[in-house]
Amino acid sequence: MIVVLEKNITDEQLKNITQHLEDYGFTIHKSSGAERTILGAIGVQPNFDTRKIKILDGVEEVYRITDPFKLASRSFKNENTMFKVKDVTIGSNEIIVIAGPCSVESEEQIMTIAEIVKKSGAKILRGGAFKPRSSPYSFQGLGEEGLKMLRKAADEFGLLVVTEVLENSLIDLIYKYTDIFQVGARNMQNYSLLKELGSAKKPVMLKRGLSATVEDWLMSAEYILSNGNPDVLLCERGIRTFETYTRNTFDISAIPVVHKRSHLPVFADPSHATGLRDKVIPMALAAVAAGADGLMVEVHHDPEHALSDGPQALLPDQFVEMMKQVKLIANVIGRTI
Amino acid sequence: MIVVLEKNITDEQLKNITQHLEDYGFTIHKSSGAERTILGAIGVQPNFDTRKIKILDGVEEVYRITDPFKLASRSFKNENTMFKVKDVTIGSNEIIVIAGPCSVESEEQIMTIAEIVKKSGAKILRGGAFKPRSSPYSFQGLGEEGLKMLRKAADEFGLLVVTEVLENSLIDLIYKYTDIFQVGARNMQNYSLLKELGSAKKPVMLKRGLSATVEDWLMSAEYILSNGNPDVLLCERGIRTFETYTRNTFDISAIPVVHKRSHLPVFADPSHATGLRDKVIPMALAAVAAGADGLMVEVHHDPEHALSDGPQALLPDQFVEMMKQVKLIANVIGRTI
Amino acid sequence: MIVVLEKNITDEQLKNITQHLEDYGFTIHKSSGAERTILGAIGVQPNFDTRKIKILDGVEEVYRITDPFKLASRSFKNENTMFKVKDVTIGSNEIIVIAGPCSVESEEQIMTIAEIVKKSGAKILRGGAFKPRSSPYSFQGLGEEGLKMLRKAADEFGLLVVTEVLENSLIDLIYKYTDIFQVGARNMQNYSLLKELGSAKKPVMLKRGLSATVEDWLMSAEYILSNGNPDVLLCERGIRTFETYTRNTFDISAIPVVHKRSHLPVFADPSHATGLRDKVIPMALAAVAAGADGLMVEVHHDPEHALSDGPQALLPDQFVEMMKQVKLIANVIGRTI
Amino acid sequence: MIVVLEKNITDEQLKNITQHLEDYGFTIHKSSGAERTILGAIGVQPNFDTRKIKILDGVEEVYRITDPFKLASRSFKNENTMFKVKDVTIGSNEIIVIAGPCSVESEEQIMTIAEIVKKSGAKILRGGAFKPRSSPYSFQGLGEEGLKMLRKAADEFGLLVVTEVLENSLIDLIYKYTDIFQVGARNMQNYSLLKELGSAKKPVMLKRGLSATVEDWLMSAEYILSNGNPDVLLCERGIRTFETYTRNTFDISAIPVVHKRSHLPVFADPSHATGLRDKVIPMALAAVAAGADGLMVEVHHDPEHALSDGPQALLPDQFVEMMKQVKLIANVIGRTI
Repeated sequence: MIVVLEKNITDEQLKNITQHLEDYGFTIHKSSGAERTILGAIGVQPNFDTRKIKILDGVEEVYRITDPFKLASRSFKNENTMFKVKDVTIGSNEIIVIAGPCSVESEEQIMTIAEIVKKSGAKILRGGAFKPRSSPYSFQGLGEEGLKMLRKAADEFGLLVVTEVLENSLIDLIYKYTDIFQVGARNMQNYSLLKELGSAKKPVMLKRGLSATVEDWLMSAEYILSNGNPDVLLCERGIRTFETYTRNTFDISAIPVVHKRSHLPVFADPSHATGLRDKVIPMALAAVAAGADGLMVEVHHDPEHALSDGPQALLPDQFVEMMKQVKLIANVIGRTI
Repeated sequence: MIVVLEKNITDEQLKNITQHLEDYGFTIHKSSGAERTILGAIGVQPNFDTRKIKILDGVEEVYRITDPFKLASRSFKNENTMFKVKDVTIGSNEIIVIAGPCSVESEEQIMTIAEIVKKSGAKILRGGAFKPRSSPYSFQGLGEEGLKMLRKAADEFGLLVVTEVLENSLIDLIYKYTDIFQVGARNMQNYSLLKELGSAKKPVMLKRGLSATVEDWLMSAEYILSNGNPDVLLCERGIRTFETYTRNTFDISAIPVVHKRSHLPVFADPSHATGLRDKVIPMALAAVAAGADGLMVEVHHDPEHALSDGPQALLPDQFVEMMKQVKLIANVIGRTI
Repeated sequence: MIVVLEKNITDEQLKNITQHLEDYGFTIHKSSGAERTILGAIGVQPNFDTRKIKILDGVEEVYRITDPFKLASRSFKNENTMFKVKDVTIGSNEIIVIAGPCSVESEEQIMTIAEIVKKSGAKILRGGAFKPRSSPYSFQGLGEEGLKMLRKAADEFGLLVVTEVLENSLIDLIYKYTDIFQVGARNMQNYSLLKELGSAKKPVMLKRGLSATVEDWLMSAEYILSNGNPDVLLCERGIRTFETYTRNTFDISAIPVVHKRSHLPVFADPSHATGLRDKVIPMALAAVAAGADGLMVEVHHDPEHALSDGPQALLPDQFVEMMKQVKLIANVIGRTI
Repeated sequence: MIVVLEKNITDEQLKNITQHLEDYGFTIHKSSGAERTILGAIGVQPNFDTRKIKILDGVEEVYRITDPFKLASRSFKNENTMFKVKDVTIGSNEIIVIAGPCSVESEEQIMTIAEIVKKSGAKILRGGAFKPRSSPYSFQGLGEEGLKMLRKAADEFGLLVVTEVLENSLIDLIYKYTDIFQVGARNMQNYSLLKELGSAKKPVMLKRGLSATVEDWLMSAEYILSNGNPDVLLCERGIRTFETYTRNTFDISAIPVVHKRSHLPVFADPSHATGLRDKVIPMALAAVAAGADGLMVEVHHDPEHALSDGPQALLPDQFVEMMKQVKLIANVIGRTI
């Protein structure tokens, strides 16, 4: 931590600040320049609340000098995190595609879509059974029946399953049916849920919250990692900004930023990021070009009658076309799919 | 719902759009102007996903014409919501002050602070026992022990209790000790939690999410209301913007906006909104001047040793001073405290 | 314009609203549903301030149904705008690359860089001579001397020139040296400048403002178009959000959004959008994958000694590598470069 | 400047970083802790681009330790800036109110409004003659005729004049009629305009840009100050966020933030911040309660026929009522009006 002192600091103020730093367990290095004096406060307290020093008289500014996350950081672990889920490796040079409907609606629906997903070369089937809807009057998912259908469809076509877990009490149930737990954007800071997933024995896909900085996001990953689960995969899905033509603003630059800061794989979800079908393909291509380790895309064979988010689902033909272009772009940047 | 058609729409496109609207259960009114044709689609579907129409060929734009929330809206219930919690009335002309430490840390601490809170004229004691901390390495609260201390201190000084409930499995426990459940900003869209609180028999204070629009916020209130609990009170606590000098941007204009849109009482939390002690008093005064029905303020007798958020806690003297000024401002706008 | 009336509107309020609409020159269509009455107000007033109706008693909400811009809209002109600047066509299937230093610093510098730019296949040379710097103490550009050097370097290597015009009084001077005027992000709503450029006889590249919605941006383009200059090209360069790891948030989804709303070509500037060299290439590839009609990239042979924005400039080798990958991605989506 | 080095930095990288810092003119202090080494780079270069160091191999993070503005900072000048404009003192304990219409529309209009403004106790008359409108088809102001009417009305009623200057070429003209130059939000980073106003011999009111941080805003003030004009007054008028119920988000907390960072007076404009009449009074009261040194409010006797921004103008009776309440709140916090 760096403490920048005010220009006209008194001896008493300086003494008081020094005393506080020592009490908090820091070792102090003092640098005096022509204009200012700076204190370097050394000590391993990654989550020290720097405002405790900022409010002392005579302090102008305080800077934390280490990231508040540790296990998630590239300085802690330099090699990319890679993990196998059955026969699929996440985080390797191969780009992994997750696809499927927003919600599981019926056995016929999920079977039809799973077949399309498989044929196009995607490896993981998505589908919601417990849905977090902004309106209490909207379709809330089929519950365990939906999970059964999802699992059956995935097994039938040799796909893995990812599905969202909304709360702690559902972890055990969902564990029985899924290969990867999904934590949705609205739950990114549901620390109680994150902690419990830290002791779950399956990987977790952590979506970025609507107003989460990359740092917040990695702190949430830290909750899972520090509770014992190393298999975390991140997923960018758009942030909230002032722009209203798109549902959210897809922060594609977060992909290289995460790769620099962290060793965790990062996927991208262009369906939620844009909210409209005709923006999904260009944004999927852009995410791959920017280095995403995978994509999550919504596909529906009959989106007009989908019970949720139909307007952002690709039609089967569009998905096939997208997969072709994604493969070509992967090749351009030296990756496979 | 209003459907604005493209200028050069074909007969076939129009027919297709009309068909879809009828299939979705709408009655259609057509208005043709010199430049454009507009379809008014009438029918009671407050949560219809307008994107279903927006993606049809020939549609330029679609506008929802009713708020997506109903029970929370002023057009559903015109009189202000008022409810009694023991001897305290929320939502009346009287401004209610909630005060206390960020976290309950010890019996001595909460007793000391409760006494200060009571003496200054505040009616409700706050204090966290289960804390949502952005770092897994930070103090996470005393748990049930903390709840017991909080209750004891409140009872000792004749105060009510408000404390945060982090997840569904804690509702029953917290119910035993609190008078009002607090849903924190990070849980504002934890719909599973909101639903269960809809059947809890105690009031709920719903804090605004960091990236929640006023509409999102009222939709979350709708979850509680529509599940049977009419005693909801909102609390503005700052939104996330590009400005970094303050922790969040305190959206004081949300206070009159909520009052226009909804009948629910709205409080303001200047401590979390700004994150620094010296900004709390001016922002508390501003919130009252803008019409807040109550304040929630962090107070600590020894903030330097607080286990969480000490830097934003007012000192006892500052809190006393704030209460004096708040009373005077309440009088200016014709309210009491 | 659509006027949604309050549920319990009185006859008198309705009469007053109707009267106002008629006075403002609108023709009224009334649609009554079970829940609400809606007035369709028809009439060609693209810039009518809808708040004039919104504040009348009995009005719940007002929606504008036409875009506030006209000449810039796709509904006004369906074919993509294409225009020739000497031998370069902007807005065609060919992706055009603009490259060069942030600032012109010396003849040697601009000559060296122009040669690199030309060899890599870019068509247009950029370079600032009058710089808008956030600090008054920073290098402000070489002025006319810089323009001369820039022109000379471009002519020497058969490139076009684009350079920024900061204010009205510089238009004539810059006209003498440039092929395309650049309006910077900070001047996007300098309407006085936009108007005068509307009568300039050279194309204008209009960068998106830091807090400009796509609608604001197209309104600014409308200023140039409506004053007589049809040769406008847009350039996305990042918007301001809460994220701080990158300088700005590159809104790549704005590219397909603009293409849907408007016929104007849209370029992308990954250098300003991210602010750091190692993010520029992935973001350049992403922008092309998303459908950008061109790129603007900063290149410097000696960025460590650059007088402005060195840290975001690509090194010559990196630029060559980027051009290779950009070409391959252009091919994937059926475009040339 | 503080340079935090990577954990596993090599000797060669460290040498290279040190060399660069020395070349850029810094003196270096090195602090080695258990986990990290930190370099303190001392030297007076307020506008040094820290990214120059950030991109070097072995550097993890760089922090600037001095504000990039100097003359505007409280550490440069500790006493509040106060200046007299004729008989009105800006920046004292007295809160100054500026009021008037958005645009000057006719002599009758401005005379009528000036009389109301004067009677209510406001000291300065506002009114636009050259208007920056987002649509090229909107009313653009009466030009010099408007300035004449404004001056005449102000003189008639003993008020000062503030009016907006849109571009450099208008400075001389406006100088003849105004007492204070207004720089609008859209021009806050029009550095060319700011520089010339630095040598104008009248005070400047600098409105905050829609996406300007407080730091950006003070940097813009620095342009005026460093060019020789010490009489700068700031005006908060709302920032752009994701919230859409209000036109902008009124950042009231910027008021105490500016007062801490800078010695310059700060006013608040609740009319532009909210955009709707019924939000103006609560926000005006809130701004005063938060410590604003003045208010700028739009008033119109016939807002339904106003040529611009009528919906946000207070009616005369409302303005009179606001002034009464503002006075009472000023008293509560120990100020006069």
